[in-house]
Amino acid sequence: MDTATASPSIKVPPSDMQQHFSDLLLAEEGTDVTFKVGSETIAAHRCVLAARSAVFKAELFGTMKEGTATTSVIQVDDMDAQIFRAMLGFIYSDWPPEIEEEEGADVMWQHLLIAADRYDLRRLRLMCEEKLSEYVDVSTATTILTLAEQHNCRGLKETCLEFLNSPANLQKVMATGGLDSLAACCPSVLKDLIAKLAKLK
Amino acid sequence: MDTATASPSIKVPPSDMQQHFSDLLLAEEGTDVTFKVGSETIAAHRCVLAARSAVFKAELFGTMKEGTATTSVIQVDDMDAQIFRAMLGFIYSDWPPEIEEEEGADVMWQHLLIAADRYDLRRLRLMCEEKLSEYVDVSTATTILTLAEQHNCRGLKETCLEFLNSPANLQKVMATGGLDSLAACCPSVLKDLIAKLAKLK
Repeated sequence: MDTATASPSIKVPPSDMQQHFSDLLLAEEGTDVTFKVGSETIAAHRCVLAARSAVFKAELFGTMKEGTATTSVIQVDDMDAQIFRAMLGFIYSDWPPEIEEEEGADVMWQHLLIAADRYDLRRLRLMCEEKLSEYVDVSTATTILTLAEQHNCRGLKETCLEFLNSPANLQKVMATGGLDSLAACCPSVLKDLIAKLAKLK
Repeated sequence: MDTATASPSIKVPPSDMQQHFSDLLLAEEGTDVTFKVGSETIAAHRCVLAARSAVFKAELFGTMKEGTATTSVIQVDDMDAQIFRAMLGFIYSDWPPEIEEEEGADVMWQHLLIAADRYDLRRLRLMCEEKLSEYVDVSTATTILTLAEQHNCRGLKETCLEFLNSPANLQKVMATGGLDSLAACCPSVLKDLIAKLAKLK
């Protein structure tokens, strides 16, 4: 025997980095930026936000001089604190946000998708698209389609159009006036829908 | 059809968090601590180090007051800059360090193991143990065994003892005076070796 065989007790465990940063967020230690979201103040670490989001990077490092950090307060408008916290949780852990499957969960996912798009968090946006696909039905199809159109979610838009491509679904949606809002805010999507229906024949 | 089927184009890619933090280290943006290692100065982010290492956490957050950050300089003794950089790379990315398979690579891994133990980076320590197992041979067995004993690396110690448990290997090691250093710095390991050999008979 010329070389050794590694002992079976040397086992490198899987990455614990996501847990480490998740713990950092919970502990709030060493935070150097505070967000005011609604009536809540939420503390975070600039370099973590900047590492994960190009939008935060521009916002936080653009005006920041190395070594002269004083905790700054940033006002976040048009977002619920609950959504901002869910987004922060994703930024620190990269895990899919935990949103309980209860009344209004689909609206939470919609708001989270908007937040993900605003801060250029592509993976989170895709997680939201994936989740919202499960919520597409007669009552939600046009709302979700509008959202998908406004935030360039190609996959989610496709899911909605495919759903409406069934005459039975489309008739039910039309009976509830579902197409009216679509016609009002993004009429170009109606053309996409018509193109799809035309292929059906 | 009552609910939708997700479009196949909605695909959530694997986690990119490790890449993001790896990029942050390379970019050196927003750093708030500097280490002086040998003749080099190396910049980093306190919250990242603290999230990943309890030793850094105590060192950096113990004396740090939120919001009063000025870039501090920390002297690191008894470590090569190259090793410190490799350790930082691991801290930020959680990826195994890249050390070229060339002359002296085993010594690099030994130094990295010492660094990992010093900063309580358990996963990195196990990566080093795993790698060093591959380097255990007649010329290195006792040096690596000494290191394993000094840094409580149970698995690596077991690998070395198992290697020396072969009479052929042991004789060659003894012929080169390999046991002398072991007897000098950690005689208790000789007892462990004797216990192992006793079982052989």
